[in-house]
Amino acid sequence: MTIEEALTSAASRTWIERGGTPATPGTGRLRPLGLREVTLRDGFWHQRQQTNRARSFAHIEHWLERAGWLGNFSAPPQERRGREFSDTEVYKFLEAMAWEYGRTRDPGVERRHRAIVARVIAAQQPDGYLNTNFGRPGQQPRYSDLEWGHELYSFGHLIQAGVAAARTFGENELVAAVIRAADHVCDVFGPGGIASVCGHAEIEPALVELYRVTGNRRYLEQARLFIDRRGHRTLADIEFGRSYFQDDVPLREATSLRGHAVRAVYLASGAVDVAVETGDTELLAAVARQWRHAVARRTYLTGGIGSRHQDEAFGDDFFLPPDRAYSETCAGVGSVMLAWRLLLAQGNPRYADLIERVLFNVIATSPADDGTRFFYANTLHQRVLGTEPSADTQVPRAASTLRAPWFEVSCCPTNLARTFASLAAYVATTDDDGVQIHQYTAAGIDTTLPDGRAIGLEIETDYPVSGRIGIRITRSPDTPWTLSLRVPDWATGATLDGLAITRGLVRTRRHFTAGETLVLDLPVRPRFVSADERIDAVRGQAALVRGPVVYCLESVDIPRDVPLEDLRLDPRIEPADRDGHVLAAFRATKPTSHDWPYQPLSASPEVGSPMRIALRPYHRWARRGPSTMRVWMPLTFER
Amino acid sequence: MTIEEALTSAASRTWIERGGTPATPGTGRLRPLGLREVTLRDGFWHQRQQTNRARSFAHIEHWLERAGWLGNFSAPPQERRGREFSDTEVYKFLEAMAWEYGRTRDPGVERRHRAIVARVIAAQQPDGYLNTNFGRPGQQPRYSDLEWGHELYSFGHLIQAGVAAARTFGENELVAAVIRAADHVCDVFGPGGIASVCGHAEIEPALVELYRVTGNRRYLEQARLFIDRRGHRTLADIEFGRSYFQDDVPLREATSLRGHAVRAVYLASGAVDVAVETGDTELLAAVARQWRHAVARRTYLTGGIGSRHQDEAFGDDFFLPPDRAYSETCAGVGSVMLAWRLLLAQGNPRYADLIERVLFNVIATSPADDGTRFFYANTLHQRVLGTEPSADTQVPRAASTLRAPWFEVSCCPTNLARTFASLAAYVATTDDDGVQIHQYTAAGIDTTLPDGRAIGLEIETDYPVSGRIGIRITRSPDTPWTLSLRVPDWATGATLDGLAITRGLVRTRRHFTAGETLVLDLPVRPRFVSADERIDAVRGQAALVRGPVVYCLESVDIPRDVPLEDLRLDPRIEPADRDGHVLAAFRATKPTSHDWPYQPLSASPEVGSPMRIALRPYHRWARRGPSTMRVWMPLTFER
Repeated sequence: MTIEEALTSAASRTWIERGGTPATPGTGRLRPLGLREVTLRDGFWHQRQQTNRARSFAHIEHWLERAGWLGNFSAPPQERRGREFSDTEVYKFLEAMAWEYGRTRDPGVERRHRAIVARVIAAQQPDGYLNTNFGRPGQQPRYSDLEWGHELYSFGHLIQAGVAAARTFGENELVAAVIRAADHVCDVFGPGGIASVCGHAEIEPALVELYRVTGNRRYLEQARLFIDRRGHRTLADIEFGRSYFQDDVPLREATSLRGHAVRAVYLASGAVDVAVETGDTELLAAVARQWRHAVARRTYLTGGIGSRHQDEAFGDDFFLPPDRAYSETCAGVGSVMLAWRLLLAQGNPRYADLIERVLFNVIATSPADDGTRFFYANTLHQRVLGTEPSADTQVPRAASTLRAPWFEVSCCPTNLARTFASLAAYVATTDDDGVQIHQYTAAGIDTTLPDGRAIGLEIETDYPVSGRIGIRITRSPDTPWTLSLRVPDWATGATLDGLAITRGLVRTRRHFTAGETLVLDLPVRPRFVSADERIDAVRGQAALVRGPVVYCLESVDIPRDVPLEDLRLDPRIEPADRDGHVLAAFRATKPTSHDWPYQPLSASPEVGSPMRIALRPYHRWARRGPSTMRVWMPLTFER
Repeated sequence: MTIEEALTSAASRTWIERGGTPATPGTGRLRPLGLREVTLRDGFWHQRQQTNRARSFAHIEHWLERAGWLGNFSAPPQERRGREFSDTEVYKFLEAMAWEYGRTRDPGVERRHRAIVARVIAAQQPDGYLNTNFGRPGQQPRYSDLEWGHELYSFGHLIQAGVAAARTFGENELVAAVIRAADHVCDVFGPGGIASVCGHAEIEPALVELYRVTGNRRYLEQARLFIDRRGHRTLADIEFGRSYFQDDVPLREATSLRGHAVRAVYLASGAVDVAVETGDTELLAAVARQWRHAVARRTYLTGGIGSRHQDEAFGDDFFLPPDRAYSETCAGVGSVMLAWRLLLAQGNPRYADLIERVLFNVIATSPADDGTRFFYANTLHQRVLGTEPSADTQVPRAASTLRAPWFEVSCCPTNLARTFASLAAYVATTDDDGVQIHQYTAAGIDTTLPDGRAIGLEIETDYPVSGRIGIRITRSPDTPWTLSLRVPDWATGATLDGLAITRGLVRTRRHFTAGETLVLDLPVRPRFVSADERIDAVRGQAALVRGPVVYCLESVDIPRDVPLEDLRLDPRIEPADRDGHVLAAFRATKPTSHDWPYQPLSASPEVGSPMRIALRPYHRWARRGPSTMRVWMPLTFER
C-alpha cells in the first residue's frame, strides 16, 4: 500500500470519522477511542476544554504573531526572532487545532489551521528541510549543534502536527509537507547518514505515529534507529552531563527515568511506540520498569516530575523538595503521553491512576481560569508573595512565581492547548469484549467494538467533588460484554452498586440493558498522607488529599496575624469536608528567632490551641491574588 | 601626595615590612596585622598553608598554562580560550603569590610572580584597558555586555593583584599597570561616562583598596559611584532577575544579602570599604543589617551560603535544603572577606564567629589533602556515590560530586590559594590599647601598638581537637594593656584561667609579664543541634557539632548491610568523643517501599536496637573514596 493509499484507506477514513486520537498503536491490550466517540459533558474538564478553545487559542495565536515566531516562517534569516525551538510552538498549536477540529468540526478552527499551515509550509526547502533557525545565509549550518539545536525535536513536533491533521482533516497540504520532512530526516539520519540523535527527544514518537498514519515502515525503522542509538554517548558531554538528554545509558539498560524530565518522558513515549510496533517486549518491559521506578521514587505527590530548576531534571531517588519543586507543566503533559501509551500496551490501571493525578494536580493547576496565563513550573511550597506579571509581558522561563501570559520559552501554553483539545481520548478504551473507563468526568461514550457491537454509555458525575459516578447504559448489544471500571489506588472502601470492590480494574461481564445505571462509589473523603521516610524534605509533615485532588494551605485562608510558616497541622483532629474546601485543625507555634538559626537540640516549641483553617485544592492556588502556600504541612509534635 | 610618593611613603614601607595584609581600612574599631606579624605554627591551618604553597601553586600554574588562560595574554584574538572571565584566575593567582611572598619572602615565588606579570602586562592596551576577551578584531566590543561580560570584574581582580603586590613587593611593574587600568576605568565609568555597573561586583572593593595604597581619592570616588549606582536597574532584566547581580534594590535599602552569593558578598565588601573610607555610617549600618539577616535566615550550618544551583544564589529566607546545597567555595571566600571588613569596622565578635565557621566547614572542606583537587560546591547531603574525575580532566562547574582538579569555571582553586596564603591576617588585630585574638590556631604574634608598645604572644593549642588554648606572653610593655579573646557563641561554659567567662569578646586589662600564660578553655564537647523550625528541609533532624566543626555521617563508616538513609539518630544517648571522631547512637529503620511513595499517615516505623557509629568532621568527607553522606540526621521518633 502506498502512502497515498494508506492516507485514503478505510482505516484512515474511520479515524477521521471518529475525530482522530493521539497515539493509535497497532497492537496492545487496549484500543483508544476517537475524540468524537467520547463527548465531555458540562463539568470540570469540559469547562477547561471550552476555555481552551474560546480563550487560549486566540491568546496563543496573538502571542505567536507578536513574538514573531509565526512571522519567522516568512522572515529573512537576519530577522528571525525567538529561541532555537520557537517553530515548535506553532506546530503544537497546529496540533491543538487539529484535535479541536476533530472533536468539534468547527469550520473556524479549520480556517485558522489552513492559514497557518500555508505560512509554515512556504518555508520548507525543496529537500524537505524545514527550520527557521538553521541553514540559511548567516545562520548556523543544519545539524551543526545536535546537543542544543533542537532540529529533530522541531521536526518531531511538525510531524505530530501532520499526524493530527491526517487523523482529523485527512490528507492535506500539511500532511504532504510532513511526509517530505520525514523523508528528509530518514535520508539524513538513516543508515549511512549522521549516526546520532537529537539533544531533545520528540522525533521518535512522531515518526512512529507517522508510520501509523502512512503505513510506511521507513519511519518506524528510523524511530527504532534513534531509540537504539540513544545512550551510546554520541552527543557531547555537557555541563549537565549526558543524562540530561538520556544519552548516558541505552534505553534497555537504564533503571529509571532520569535527566531533563520532558526529554525523558518524550523519549520513553517513543520507545513504547517502537516497542509496540516492532513486538519488542524487552524494550517495553524496560520502559515500564523505569516508569515504575520513577513513580515510586522521583515523583511529587501531585504527580509532577522534575525536582531541579537548573536542568529541569529529575533528581536522585527521593530528592523531592517541595520548595522550588520544578514540576514543569510540559513534563506533566509528557508524563500523560507516556502513561497513556503504557496503559494501551499493558492495560494496567496504575497508569491511569498516574494520569488522573497529573491531570488534576499539574495540568489543571497551570492555566488561569481565563486560559490566558500559565504556570511554567508548579512548586509545592511558595515562601514569599509573588508578583503578577503584566498581561503584556513575555517573562523568562520559570522565573515568574505567578501565572504569566507568555514565556521566552513558551512550551506550556501550546502543550496544554493540545492536551485539553484531546482530553476526551483519555477517558475510556475498548478491547475485544467491552469498554474500560479510566477517567471519571461527565461524558457520553458512543463506540463500536471490533466485532461491530455498538455500545453507548453516559457517565453521570460531578467527580471529583463527589465520588458518586453513575454509568448509564444508553446502547447495548444483545450479547454479554464487559464493562471495566478503574478503582483508583487511593479508593479504599469503594463500592459498585453497593458491593465492596477492590482497587484496580473491576470487570463486570453480563448482558446490559439500555437505560440501566451502575453506580460506582469512590470514597473521596479527605485523608492525610505522609511521604516515604527517605523523602527527607517533607519529614514530619503531612499533606491532605481528597479523592485524586491534592489540597494546600494558602495564606489568603489564614488569619492575618498568623504567619503561614508558624502553623502546625494537628492530625489527631479529623479533617471536615465542606463545600469546595476541607477544614483541618492547626495550632500556631512561635519560632524563636536567633542570630544563628542552629541551636542546641531542645524540647518541642509551644503550640497554641487548635483553630480550623480551610484547605483548598492545590490546582486552585494563586487564583485570589498573590499568596504564600504549602502542600506539605508541618505536624504538631504530639501525634 | 602623588601616587609615587604614596607608594614609597613610610606607611607603605611599613606594610611591606609587616608582610602586607588584605584590607587596610583607614578607620575602624580594629586594625589588621601584617602577614609577618602573625606566624602560623604547625597545626591545622599551617598544614593547609604549606600544602597551598608546595602543591596548589604548581597545580594552578600547570592548569593555567594547559587551559590556555595564561597563553591568552599573548595569543591572537581568534585563539583565545576559556570563559569570558578566565583572566581573573591568573590575577587571583598573582594575588596569592604576593601574599605568599609577603609572609615568606620566598624568592622562588617572586620569580614566578615576575614572570607571569610580564606576560600579563604585555597585553595591556595603551589606554590602560586590559582584557583578553574583548575589544580586539573579531571580538565583542569593549563594554558591550555589562550584564555578562565580567570586564569590570576582571579589572577588579587585576587591581586586587596589584594592591597585594604593592603591599608585599612594593612599587613594581604590575602596580604601575594596575594604576593605568584603574585610571582607564575611572575615565570610562566616571562622571559623564558610562553610567552603569558590572554584572559581577569586584571592582568596588578593588578600587577602594587601590585608594588605600595610592592615596588617590579618584579611585575611592569611583567605587562610591559604583556602589551608589547599583540597585537602580541600569543592567538588563535577565532570566534570573536583577537581584542576581544585586541591581534590583539600592544597597542602602535592601534588607538582606540576596541573589548570586559570590556577587552579593563581594559587593557588600566593597560597600563596607566605601562606607569606612567616606564615613558613611548609614551605608555601613545597611550592610551590617543585611549580613545579620542573611546569617540568621540564609546560611547553612557550615556557614556556607547559596542554596541554589541554577543561579548560584541565596534562596528565600529559610530555604536551606541540605540536598544539593550549593554553598560555593568562592562564596565562602567572599563571606570571609565581608565578615572580616565588618569586624574591623565594628569590632563585633560575631563576625569572627562566622569567619571561624566558614574556615572550618567550607574553606577546609574544599581542597583535597594534597591540594590539587577541589570541591566547587559543598553539599550537605550526598545521596549517591560520586565518581572521581580523572586528574587529567577539566570538569564543568559544579557537576562533579567529588573533588576535581580543574573546572571550566575554575574560580575556587585560585580563590582558596589567595585565602590560604593570607590566612594569618584573620587571627588577630590591634586597637589603641591592645591585641584581640579572633581565631585560635598555633601561632606566634609579634606586633606594635600605634603608640609604639611592642607586644609578643604565642598561641599554643591543637584547637579544634581540644578546646584548651594557652596564650603565652612573649613580649610586653611595662604599662597595662588589654588582651581580648573571642569566646565563640557556641562556647557555653568557657573558662579563662579557670574562671567562668561569657560568650563574646573577653577583655583582660592589666600588666602582663613575658613568660606568663593565660589558659582559655573552650568546651568543644560534641553537641547535637537542630535548626530553626522554618528550615523545613531539616525538620525532625539533628546535626552534630563539636567546637566550631560540623560533623557528618558517611557511608564508609557504617555497616555495609545498612543503607545510610535507613539510619535514625537516637539523641537520648549522649555522643562520645573519640580520637578524631565522635560516636553517636543510631537505630536502623526499614522503610516500606510502595509503588507510590505517599501513603496514609501512620504510626512511626519500627526502629532497631542502638548501634554506635562514628561521625567525622564534615571537612574530612569524601577523602576515603566515593561515599554517601549526610550532615543532618533524621531522629528516632521517640525523643
